[in-house]
Amino acid sequence: MTYCVAMRVESGLVFLSDSRTNAGVDQVSTFRKMTVYENPGDRMLVLMTAGNLSISQSVRQLIAERINDSGRNIWNAATMHEAAQVVGDAVRAVYERDARALREFGIDFNISIIFGGQIRGERSRLFQVYAAGNFIESHDEALYFQIGEAKYGKPIIDRVLTRATSLDEAAKCALVSMDSTLRSNISCGLPLDLLIYENDKLAVSRFVNIDEKNQYFQMIRSSWGQQLKRIFEGIADPVWNATSESEANALATAGGRAEPLRVAPPQSMLRPDAHPAPPQTLAQQTPDRQQG
Amino acid sequence: MTYCVAMRVESGLVFLSDSRTNAGVDQVSTFRKMTVYENPGDRMLVLMTAGNLSISQSVRQLIAERINDSGRNIWNAATMHEAAQVVGDAVRAVYERDARALREFGIDFNISIIFGGQIRGERSRLFQVYAAGNFIESHDEALYFQIGEAKYGKPIIDRVLTRATSLDEAAKCALVSMDSTLRSNISCGLPLDLLIYENDKLAVSRFVNIDEKNQYFQMIRSSWGQQLKRIFEGIADPVWNATSESEANALATAGGRAEPLRVAPPQSMLRPDAHPAPPQTLAQQTPDRQQG
Repeated sequence: MTYCVAMRVESGLVFLSDSRTNAGVDQVSTFRKMTVYENPGDRMLVLMTAGNLSISQSVRQLIAERINDSGRNIWNAATMHEAAQVVGDAVRAVYERDARALREFGIDFNISIIFGGQIRGERSRLFQVYAAGNFIESHDEALYFQIGEAKYGKPIIDRVLTRATSLDEAAKCALVSMDSTLRSNISCGLPLDLLIYENDKLAVSRFVNIDEKNQYFQMIRSSWGQQLKRIFEGIADPVWNATSESEANALATAGGRAEPLRVAPPQSMLRPDAHPAPPQTLAQQTPDRQQG
Repeated sequence: MTYCVAMRVESGLVFLSDSRTNAGVDQVSTFRKMTVYENPGDRMLVLMTAGNLSISQSVRQLIAERINDSGRNIWNAATMHEAAQVVGDAVRAVYERDARALREFGIDFNISIIFGGQIRGERSRLFQVYAAGNFIESHDEALYFQIGEAKYGKPIIDRVLTRATSLDEAAKCALVSMDSTLRSNISCGLPLDLLIYENDKLAVSRFVNIDEKNQYFQMIRSSWGQQLKRIFEGIADPVWNATSESEANALATAGGRAEPLRVAPPQSMLRPDAHPAPPQTLAQQTPDRQQG
């Protein structure tokens, strides 16, 4: 389904997308999800899409060519908010054209968009545009947006990203987030597009297309996995029969009365030598159960 | 929505479930998702459910009380495969009773089940039962099942779990997987049920109900997060202008020709002092762009 993530930190913006597209497991292909609209010195805008590919392509087409009723387009919008409306309007125009026919085939009008960048005269901004053409904006408490297969890669971002994170650190974070996703879901795949934008540059700062041979990404992939295993092995084993709850690494206490929800067997099913299931303390390591 | 995970390793089984249930953000409650059917010396079976709560409860009710046509039930099934069929039959019976009425209200017949344990005479086994009452079994290449909000917690399991993992290590892995999920999705919450089963014991080995005060789980939550940040900060920063692709930490090379997909501005939009967008090398740290 794809995975795209964008982050807004103090010094600028980071955008990362994959490029796998599929119409089922026997029809897998590549399509780059990131498009850049750059007029150096005036504006630098990045669009990333997830969802139905034909809708994504039509939206791009309309944004690139369309002057709407008020003559407003992606190149003359005065603010990012206006530019986001241009994107939203394009989505609505595609909806008008295609939604009903798609519905006839049981296909949802499925598209989600990340749109960010900077227009001369204001600060850098980041938006998420929905299939209905409306949108929300990121702010200091919501530093990132994800679209597509977002869940696998969310925990690491939640743990690591802050406003003070540098652009290189945010890029690392995005790459680790993408690595978790690539390992766990085959609808996402290489190559990746990674774009860094430094505030007030009004042009792309850095860009790289990452394939299987990219040395840095391979290093992240193997290094992150190895180190995760190492800290995992370093976590102390639980103590199941601690003398008190405050003992180090106490998971359960000896004599603790924790019980799972049980269904007791019918009396007739009990083995002759077995005892009926009494309330029992199970948080003990010794094989003999305490009889009630 | 809940999150439950079960793992089958060489020495036994690990089961972990949360207990949050909700019918919207203003109706959040607690319901334990794990049920134990234990006849010591004969069988130890664990059932975990995710999905529609009324369906889950009805399935439990039927399993506990129902003798089906052949007189087969959870207590006399000769194998885990038969016992899984008892569970599947209960799901189908609830479907017969409730599915149509639910559909009238636009509600899907949504239930997923993890079912595992051991019956005397065969090895421990682990199954996932679907809403249609059919099921699949875990094997040496598929060591775990997840139901509910599974995606956040999947990457760590994929990185760490093997057949040779000890029961305590597998329990740690499940707790870290749950921690990632709890942080990222508010439809899952404490307390947790954690059950360990050692092969051939034919009774629960260890059980604990984990709440906010549990010392070990709090240690995992804070320790894991801190150590993740530490190894993250230890990852080398990328080199954007490497002399060659094989240079250490080379993300992009100086003079690299990687380009994002661009849409060029119309000639009329260009600022008088700006150059039209040529093919450019952007993978450079210096602010001056190379003019084409």
